[in-house]
Amino acid sequence: MSNPDLDLIERRIADLVEGFATAPDAATADATCTRMLEATARQAVASSEGGKRLRALLAMDAYAAVGGDDARTDAVRDLACAIEVFQTAALVHDDIIDDSDLRRGRPAAHKALGAQSGDPALGVGLGIMLGDMLATASVDIADTAARALPNADEIVHAFLAMHREVEIGQVLDLAAALGPLDDPERMAATALDVSRWKTASYTTIAPIELAMLAAGARPGDARERALAIGGSLGLAFQITDDLLDVVGNNTGKPIGGDIREGKRTVLLADALARATPQERDELVAAYGAPSRDDGRVRRVIALFDATGAVGRSRERIAGLWERTRDAIDALGLPQEGRDRLVAACARFVPTVR
Amino acid sequence: MSNPDLDLIERRIADLVEGFATAPDAATADATCTRMLEATARQAVASSEGGKRLRALLAMDAYAAVGGDDARTDAVRDLACAIEVFQTAALVHDDIIDDSDLRRGRPAAHKALGAQSGDPALGVGLGIMLGDMLATASVDIADTAARALPNADEIVHAFLAMHREVEIGQVLDLAAALGPLDDPERMAATALDVSRWKTASYTTIAPIELAMLAAGARPGDARERALAIGGSLGLAFQITDDLLDVVGNNTGKPIGGDIREGKRTVLLADALARATPQERDELVAAYGAPSRDDGRVRRVIALFDATGAVGRSRERIAGLWERTRDAIDALGLPQEGRDRLVAACARFVPTVR
Repeated sequence: MSNPDLDLIERRIADLVEGFATAPDAATADATCTRMLEATARQAVASSEGGKRLRALLAMDAYAAVGGDDARTDAVRDLACAIEVFQTAALVHDDIIDDSDLRRGRPAAHKALGAQSGDPALGVGLGIMLGDMLATASVDIADTAARALPNADEIVHAFLAMHREVEIGQVLDLAAALGPLDDPERMAATALDVSRWKTASYTTIAPIELAMLAAGARPGDARERALAIGGSLGLAFQITDDLLDVVGNNTGKPIGGDIREGKRTVLLADALARATPQERDELVAAYGAPSRDDGRVRRVIALFDATGAVGRSRERIAGLWERTRDAIDALGLPQEGRDRLVAACARFVPTVR
Repeated sequence: MSNPDLDLIERRIADLVEGFATAPDAATADATCTRMLEATARQAVASSEGGKRLRALLAMDAYAAVGGDDARTDAVRDLACAIEVFQTAALVHDDIIDDSDLRRGRPAAHKALGAQSGDPALGVGLGIMLGDMLATASVDIADTAARALPNADEIVHAFLAMHREVEIGQVLDLAAALGPLDDPERMAATALDVSRWKTASYTTIAPIELAMLAAGARPGDARERALAIGGSLGLAFQITDDLLDVVGNNTGKPIGGDIREGKRTVLLADALARATPQERDELVAAYGAPSRDDGRVRRVIALFDATGAVGRSRERIAGLWERTRDAIDALGLPQEGRDRLVAACARFVPTVR
């Protein structure tokens, strides 16, 4: 995908994060402290790199699609970057919570900071602070951008509401892992709740809502339309992500990671719902175990396929994508705007074509 | 201390936090998830209880002292509450980083959540999220309050700058623990850097700056004056806090906690600087050890006294308090306003009298 906005976004995120995370020279004269502040600031920039920027691109495309004023594109880009910076903040804390080693193919922030300081516990402490700092940075960037845009107060409010939704979603995600394995319907519903709050909130709903507010839409309308388009799209995105974990992808992520972690996905729920009693026992045993080795992961993938759960996920994605397109059509945009918004949304569901 | 503002502040904090932390009913229909959301929201309120509210009271007294409009007191109170909510957010993450069991005499948030869910690791995950949620709440509360006040944009900006300063201070604090024990001058300077950023920032500087902005001061003036008054006062507060840890207090905290944790305080630096070679070896051995038992803690306290470090801390506090009063005098307030601000500041240094 070649997108002229992408380079601008990437450079702007690096500048904004570096500007915020770099402590004033006056903070301390102590060499050890200075080194640690610098390491944290460098990690803030490093953790911000390597994203696909789908969220920022969606915000910018949605802004153009609904006829936003070209003269304010710089402020909208900063607002779009703020969403990406918030994502990085959330991922840094996520990786601590999940004790993940890697993120985007590199050491997770707390692991990198632990390795640099030679003390894993210190790495966790610094990682918690780094996540806090990036979360603050995201609001600061959004707030500054909003001042140059219509609906400034509403933009800040919506941005903070997005933070809150993701925080609720993370609690739901932690709770979902405690649910029973023998109630597929409940598991599917809960996985969709988690996706709505933890993922769709900031991935698809907020980018569209913020773009519409920035283009001057009435706040209630912006919210309603963003929920209609982004709600379905965000679920489609999450199910696609779960599916790519099983059928392979070209992002370099090893296959089966979700299964290894024991993640309660819609895919798993659908497999449990469609399994024979014997297959179901096998799945329950696999997910009830404290960990799953490569052989077990391969077997679960085979069961996802054999039960028809993979096919069911494809159907779910197609249905949600149809609802997304209907919601876009309901906006009544001129053809060019409609096509641009459809194309921006389609990036979230690469398996649909 | 009987203060009519105190009850109002306490109730308002509970209302604001509960309002923000309670997830919408629509978030999930799942019983386990609902229970966990409710537990997190309850813990948000519980963790917000029990503070002395010195920061909120300082903001409100400073606002009245500089002649702020009575008609806007409700918005200023909310802004003052936002500082307290931010403190709670910072303490929740602090307690995870330090692996503390207790906070304000009750289980630390992540311990309470771990006990409720029966899984300590889950408690840490939920605690990280709770801190994030309270940090978001603090900005949301401050932002809403600011909209009813002069200098609205500057208030939000200053509030976010306060977040950032505390985050920098926490990194400094983690780094300070790695410094050498044989350089007392460096240790004292670093401890003061940590106090400036991690403590004075939100304890004394921001409450005064935000109050002055809310009263309509020019932003540059508000910042400069808040730094002059709150900078010295915040250091005096931290040294007082360190001192009370050694000479006793009536807050119910066990004595010597900082020593047990091996905290690098100004008091320790002053003791090292004034110790005989033999005393110094003893202190270095005590702080170089992985932990300190009750006997060792008592011995360190005795050395703090014998070396004259306790006396030196009292002198430091007196000197910083004098600078605080000079900075207040320099405001040229009417007598009543001056006295009110002095009284509000004096609450941070109870050992001065």
